[in-house]
Amino acid sequence: MQVLARRWRRKGYTIALVPTMGALHNGHLSLIKRARRVADKLVVSIFVNPTQFGPREDYSRYPRTFAADKNKCLAGGADVIFCPTPETMYPPAFGTWIEMDELTSKLEGAARPTHLRGVCTVVLKLFNIVTPDVAVFGQKDFQQGVVIKRMAADLNLGVKIIIGATVREPDGLALSSRNAYLTTVQRQTADVLYRTLTWAKEQIIAGKNRPAALVRHMTEVIELDSGFKVEYIEFADPWTLKRQKVIEPQTVVLIAAQLGRTRFIDNIIVK
Amino acid sequence: MQVLARRWRRKGYTIALVPTMGALHNGHLSLIKRARRVADKLVVSIFVNPTQFGPREDYSRYPRTFAADKNKCLAGGADVIFCPTPETMYPPAFGTWIEMDELTSKLEGAARPTHLRGVCTVVLKLFNIVTPDVAVFGQKDFQQGVVIKRMAADLNLGVKIIIGATVREPDGLALSSRNAYLTTVQRQTADVLYRTLTWAKEQIIAGKNRPAALVRHMTEVIELDSGFKVEYIEFADPWTLKRQKVIEPQTVVLIAAQLGRTRFIDNIIVK
Repeated sequence: MQVLARRWRRKGYTIALVPTMGALHNGHLSLIKRARRVADKLVVSIFVNPTQFGPREDYSRYPRTFAADKNKCLAGGADVIFCPTPETMYPPAFGTWIEMDELTSKLEGAARPTHLRGVCTVVLKLFNIVTPDVAVFGQKDFQQGVVIKRMAADLNLGVKIIIGATVREPDGLALSSRNAYLTTVQRQTADVLYRTLTWAKEQIIAGKNRPAALVRHMTEVIELDSGFKVEYIEFADPWTLKRQKVIEPQTVVLIAAQLGRTRFIDNIIVK
Repeated sequence: MQVLARRWRRKGYTIALVPTMGALHNGHLSLIKRARRVADKLVVSIFVNPTQFGPREDYSRYPRTFAADKNKCLAGGADVIFCPTPETMYPPAFGTWIEMDELTSKLEGAARPTHLRGVCTVVLKLFNIVTPDVAVFGQKDFQQGVVIKRMAADLNLGVKIIIGATVREPDGLALSSRNAYLTTVQRQTADVLYRTLTWAKEQIIAGKNRPAALVRHMTEVIELDSGFKVEYIEFADPWTLKRQKVIEPQTVVLIAAQLGRTRFIDNIIVK
């Protein structure tokens, strides 16, 4: 991949990268199509990255669906599907990590202490192998997008980071590979996260600016019938992720909630 | 610099980088000349990197001699001298760091806990800006060389790391920008570090393989008349820096010693 990418660069081609963990759904496909439009060559990487999973998380049971993934990549116009093995990405002597200040320790970082370190490290490795001009990530992992933009700026990566809009089911549930873990019963109420996010957005547009009351109501609605347990609901600056004690006109509302053994996250931008 | 480097790459030129903190001496010049031979374009960076100095170290008094440095770079055949400011390299929001496991916490890392983190971070930033095929570092900072090779491998940098031999004064003192801190009296005995290193090498070649006796004798000789205070003397595997409890035929002998307010390091390879 690295040799091919260098050959492309020497010929003057621009390169776009969509890093994924496979189990591709239409959310990924929309990122792939977006990336297809912005560069000459398109690489989709499929790598279930062990270092971004915590010890009690779902690394081993994470869905792996390569045959279907391949079709989606080709339908999206990928030139190359890059699928390294864990052993080549992390040989036994491996020991170099990208660490960040508070940005990676709050929100997702609070629940998953090494998650964003693993994400940054694998993304930097993929960038160095694929040498993209542009990389496309999904908005659903909002904090991940902020963190990667920050890494790209801090380390002078020279890679443009594009965040593609979240694709949703008709009822609003954000597409996610982990939706496959939902039972039919759980699925029926899983749209509650997005319903409360859109409710919060309406409240903010209507002038509400105190987080506490909104959080209380949202938590009640979410936990009422669904079996979800809310982990955090937060109103933050969309660029720095600084928590807003008074909600400002430009804000991102971030939710994480647990349903059975699985964590779900979603968010909505107000501006 | 980043724009120029990308233009070079598009034209098919290879690029070599010699990262320095300025105060260039003939050791640097030999690295520059070495780099000149291995690529089409040669960049020498001059940046006194604040993040690799500890809070009580010599960042502010580190020698800055740009006019003389410029002449040395040109004499060595540099195409570009890249001199970023601390403010552009570390804007206020900066917060991304390269961290490594034990390799950066022992030896120099024990005395200077954030030193190698600062080195790795700035070197990665310089690599991303200059996009070199090859980078040349000096053997005097032996651990730094091992660490950077490890970072390059772990992060798939695709940059070849060359370690250039240490250049010495006629009496054996390794050239260092910090030699400028030596008084005339201190200078007279400063060669003792290298004298004991060559003595140790002879002992190892003669079959001695117990570190304790060698360390004791070397420490005595170094501290006897010179004013040096030995910080560590260690026998380690030259690739992994694993300490050798029994000295093996292939070893690197590493020394750090303090003279007045200044730390000096040196090393010798036995093979």
